[in-house]
Amino acid sequence: MTALTDQSKAGAGRTIISVDAMGGDQGPAAIVAGIADSAKRNPDIGFILHGPKDELERLVAKRKGLAERIEIRDAPEVVTMEDKPSHVVRHGRDTSMWSALDSVRAGEATVCVSCGNTGALMLMSVLRLRKLPGIYRPAIAVMWPSQNPQGHNIMLDGGADIRADAKDLMQYALMGASYARNGFGLAKPRIGLLNVGTEEHKGRAELKEAYDLIAANARISDFEFVGFVEGRDLPGTACDVIVTDGFTGNVALKTGEGIAKLISELLREAFAYSVLSRVASVLAYPALRRLKKRIDPRRANGGVFLGLNGTVVKSHGAADATGVSSAIKLAFELAQSGFSERLAARVASAASLDQDAPSDNIIDGETE
Amino acid sequence: MTALTDQSKAGAGRTIISVDAMGGDQGPAAIVAGIADSAKRNPDIGFILHGPKDELERLVAKRKGLAERIEIRDAPEVVTMEDKPSHVVRHGRDTSMWSALDSVRAGEATVCVSCGNTGALMLMSVLRLRKLPGIYRPAIAVMWPSQNPQGHNIMLDGGADIRADAKDLMQYALMGASYARNGFGLAKPRIGLLNVGTEEHKGRAELKEAYDLIAANARISDFEFVGFVEGRDLPGTACDVIVTDGFTGNVALKTGEGIAKLISELLREAFAYSVLSRVASVLAYPALRRLKKRIDPRRANGGVFLGLNGTVVKSHGAADATGVSSAIKLAFELAQSGFSERLAARVASAASLDQDAPSDNIIDGETE
Repeated sequence: MTALTDQSKAGAGRTIISVDAMGGDQGPAAIVAGIADSAKRNPDIGFILHGPKDELERLVAKRKGLAERIEIRDAPEVVTMEDKPSHVVRHGRDTSMWSALDSVRAGEATVCVSCGNTGALMLMSVLRLRKLPGIYRPAIAVMWPSQNPQGHNIMLDGGADIRADAKDLMQYALMGASYARNGFGLAKPRIGLLNVGTEEHKGRAELKEAYDLIAANARISDFEFVGFVEGRDLPGTACDVIVTDGFTGNVALKTGEGIAKLISELLREAFAYSVLSRVASVLAYPALRRLKKRIDPRRANGGVFLGLNGTVVKSHGAADATGVSSAIKLAFELAQSGFSERLAARVASAASLDQDAPSDNIIDGETE
Repeated sequence: MTALTDQSKAGAGRTIISVDAMGGDQGPAAIVAGIADSAKRNPDIGFILHGPKDELERLVAKRKGLAERIEIRDAPEVVTMEDKPSHVVRHGRDTSMWSALDSVRAGEATVCVSCGNTGALMLMSVLRLRKLPGIYRPAIAVMWPSQNPQGHNIMLDGGADIRADAKDLMQYALMGASYARNGFGLAKPRIGLLNVGTEEHKGRAELKEAYDLIAANARISDFEFVGFVEGRDLPGTACDVIVTDGFTGNVALKTGEGIAKLISELLREAFAYSVLSRVASVLAYPALRRLKKRIDPRRANGGVFLGLNGTVVKSHGAADATGVSSAIKLAFELAQSGFSERLAARVASAASLDQDAPSDNIIDGETE
């Protein structure tokens, strides 16, 4: 599926995004619908789409004018949500996910977008794109709704690796700061380190060590370190970027999703309670829709893999056309800002701080 | 402040609750207001109240009929939120917190309620009440709103100890099951172990070990083990009790608080948006009040310290009269059910499963 094809259709001065059409819960139709939406909104994007050729051609042909913007690469196999990452990287050469990453590896596309199995996508990204020089553990940066002016906070790691030592957390701070500068346009992002209390004497030993490392890097890396923050600061205004290990980050992320879902269910029940409340719900509909739009995970859809040679946007597995379109928008913005190159430069300048550090590679085959 | 006083006033066939009047953000007036509310609702509770005698007598005298239900113990000093736990246990003999715990230690009261400094209260509870035989780490059990029939789920550890090994997590499962049986009346509580994915191959090594230990205990301890659960199950319906270490539990708890606060702020903004939405908000007020009541942390107020010789209810530091009253209600229910004795029996029967385990005491002076 890496056969050389004529790229003139997708290209022609456009920014090329490589899209994995398979592996999402809603199938390739939702992916193509999202692409169609993005193509309509932004004439500067071209696409390379990966998956079973016949099926994709049929889906693309239904959308007027879309075929001219898309290059289809045939990849007959699919990575499912149940596949073990270690199995996929050994036997997944014919999958759409592999093919989508290879377009970035070959320099044909700037960013890859996939809705598929997170563990497999992360491990395959590390193996195919390789880590940036000096990076120990890549991370997934995710967004939280907040009342900060930019409307969202960045948290990393959202679940790329369940472990992170002090040096990893320091690198997450650097990568998060770079993402906030390029994604949000913040000149001097405020970074917080997630802990159970804001007093310096609390928390795990590696967090105290990370605290010192991040504080030492703040001066030359042009971010403000606000120190320890707590769970309530993830959707709060104390900082713009929150740094934590992938285990804690993933639990927090899913806890937030769970609470938002519960409140939305309870709100629906509260409005169905009586005739008066049903009347109120009709009048309240525009206000509730505004709220929903504000915290809709589909509109901040896209965990971004940081620390690799190339950018990978992981869209939510359950993403519909709106979610896919929003992930593509993010991918385009990061590609436009030259984010990947800027991040590499930042990490390189910080790495020179500790020349003595061993450059071991911890992720080498199992990141499930 | 442990002088013997006439207990006939507080006693007389009543269940006695020992209450620390100091250390809460809202001062002793809020505590006395909460006690007055509880005393009115439930004639079967008597109180021993600890703090500066003159001030407490003045506050109690303002409430008609309350003085007859309350025994005041003079304790001139206060544990503040800023005090280091290790300092407090060495120098805190004259504090209201110490005095309140000593009433349980002496058998004068069944349960102790305090709004004070969590770390100090935990460490002092461990030192004054001692751990149950066979318990390595006590835990704080906290409640999450959920759509389960009982309206709440139990999570432990909410932050007593930032570490927990496999054996601790197994004991949390036993203690949580016992709490769910006595607090919620669930015959066979469903227990879940918090992890980043529901597949058995994911997560940290100690979680895999804990999985096996909990599964082995489910048979004889009369609970159902549902296996690994995710952050979204904390406010979900997959289980009744969620087990995790105190670091992860505390981050999740505060993340949930943060998201609930953000949604409530955004809801207010959404309803203030236009004239129509302001009209809608008036009509929607009863529905929104129902929702607020349902997820109001004051109504599920009270982390419970499990694993000690005696029960301690930690109320939220910011608790007002409603919050204090709800913590006292919980304390009364646990006292009535003979919870402390039942829990001890459960732990003892499970401890016999592994006679070879070392009975080391890990918490011995620093739990900040």
